[in-house]
Amino acid sequence: MAQHVNFIEVGPRDGFQNVKDYIPADIKVKLIDDLLAAGVRRMEMTSFVSPKAIPQMRDAAEVVCRTLETHGDEGVELYALVPNTYGAKAAAAAGLREVATVISVSESHNKANINRTVEESLQGLEKMRQALPDLNINLSMATAFTCPFEGITPVENVLKIIRRAAGLGITRFCLADTIGEADPKMVRDTLTIVQQVFPDITLDVHIHDTRNMGIACTLAALEAGVCNVQAALGGLGGCPFAPGASGNVASEDLIFMLNKMGFTTGIDFDKMLAAAKYERSVITGNFSGHQVHIGEPCH
Amino acid sequence: MAQHVNFIEVGPRDGFQNVKDYIPADIKVKLIDDLLAAGVRRMEMTSFVSPKAIPQMRDAAEVVCRTLETHGDEGVELYALVPNTYGAKAAAAAGLREVATVISVSESHNKANINRTVEESLQGLEKMRQALPDLNINLSMATAFTCPFEGITPVENVLKIIRRAAGLGITRFCLADTIGEADPKMVRDTLTIVQQVFPDITLDVHIHDTRNMGIACTLAALEAGVCNVQAALGGLGGCPFAPGASGNVASEDLIFMLNKMGFTTGIDFDKMLAAAKYERSVITGNFSGHQVHIGEPCH
Repeated sequence: MAQHVNFIEVGPRDGFQNVKDYIPADIKVKLIDDLLAAGVRRMEMTSFVSPKAIPQMRDAAEVVCRTLETHGDEGVELYALVPNTYGAKAAAAAGLREVATVISVSESHNKANINRTVEESLQGLEKMRQALPDLNINLSMATAFTCPFEGITPVENVLKIIRRAAGLGITRFCLADTIGEADPKMVRDTLTIVQQVFPDITLDVHIHDTRNMGIACTLAALEAGVCNVQAALGGLGGCPFAPGASGNVASEDLIFMLNKMGFTTGIDFDKMLAAAKYERSVITGNFSGHQVHIGEPCH
Repeated sequence: MAQHVNFIEVGPRDGFQNVKDYIPADIKVKLIDDLLAAGVRRMEMTSFVSPKAIPQMRDAAEVVCRTLETHGDEGVELYALVPNTYGAKAAAAAGLREVATVISVSESHNKANINRTVEESLQGLEKMRQALPDLNINLSMATAFTCPFEGITPVENVLKIIRRAAGLGITRFCLADTIGEADPKMVRDTLTIVQQVFPDITLDVHIHDTRNMGIACTLAALEAGVCNVQAALGGLGGCPFAPGASGNVASEDLIFMLNKMGFTTGIDFDKMLAAAKYERSVITGNFSGHQVHIGEPCH
């Protein structure tokens, strides 16, 4: 079992993106500060997307610049999600050295999500690499385990995309359980195969907690040898295909368990929980983290 | 890994007991019916306690009699929780052949919970056995992993109580994570030791989901070879030591995952989820099951 966990906070992107009311940049920057102060060393901090499509992320450049000003020299890995080369350029212009971009493994979800075939997305990735050769690009693979339209995702399709992207020089991949329907066995089986076929890539997992399997799936990933795990403060996030569903695994719940089990995460649980409680006090959202509710009256 | 899971529904006792408003006996009986129709084969269905202490359970005899009338010949294992010989006699008089009684492994929790020393509780258990030699008594051991007052429970104390109770003829034990603070490693370690020392007892686990580790802990129990796992429909339940905390692992979430992973549970998920949604429509409580919230608007 992996003993060290490289925890990756994605709340400021995947969490905030699903919050309806605009969160002022001051609050975003403070929460990012708090997370870094708690010991987070890698974070998906915003998204460079069309402000018309996702108004919440319209302050991406400001959030990045202010954060880099304070924390740029601390050796933390800060990156943003980008849908295309235009977004990647904006992220680089704001000072980031790394971005993540998304391709869905299943054709129908890729079509629904970004209106492209998987092949068109791979060609877009190639163009992004050519346009920005000095930018680190990691590839997030949505519906890597199951798809809301196609059911269980064949692991061959995951391998195929990794093979193509690796050929373009991509070395870091994230397998995402987009709708929170992967079970621990499925996570273990897929990750085992991917690691056997591609022993040299860096592999992350991104698990949603829609059906309460999120923590168990994350633990299954760690037991399968994948030590880069993502979660979102407060369990914020959501899924358009499952209204009312909870979002990501809650960072504070995951860190509580991992620290307790003897994994080294480098994260101070009390500081992280304080950040989650502050988040809940200033943001109106669907907080599904259990820890963040303890001590509050029943509802 | 255990392939067959003996699922034990405890919602009608541990769930309902924590619901403030009285649930009419008709609704209790219907939910028990629905759970049995979904395939549940063992259930902690009520509690024979002082109606002054827990008014919710004042209809215990009625609920038992009506359920036995319909399902008494189906070979399902129906039992009730009893705090003492008086309750055990009432349960037997209502027609039950099995009861569960509770001793906390930690002295301070036993004192807080039932105002007895562990030794006094063991003597009470002996008297119950003598008074009702034909009644099956299983022993639920609260704070078997951690205690809100004493912290981590030494496994030696668990073994000591099992040894004493086994000497009184008790053959079935339930290890309860009363406050939901056990982690999967702790569950695995404790259960492994208990099974090594007492290979012939029947062992159940009862896990609360206060800190979102419930499903992972239950899976750890199954992986450690304990195939009798308890949960409560809708995730109802609570813990007086953690206000606002969620209750038990939600039956429907657990069954969804186990069926998906290929365990045989004998339970029809769709029927169980329908029961959980019906429960939520007629009871005002703290429903923490994820599945029961899917499809509802965000809040």
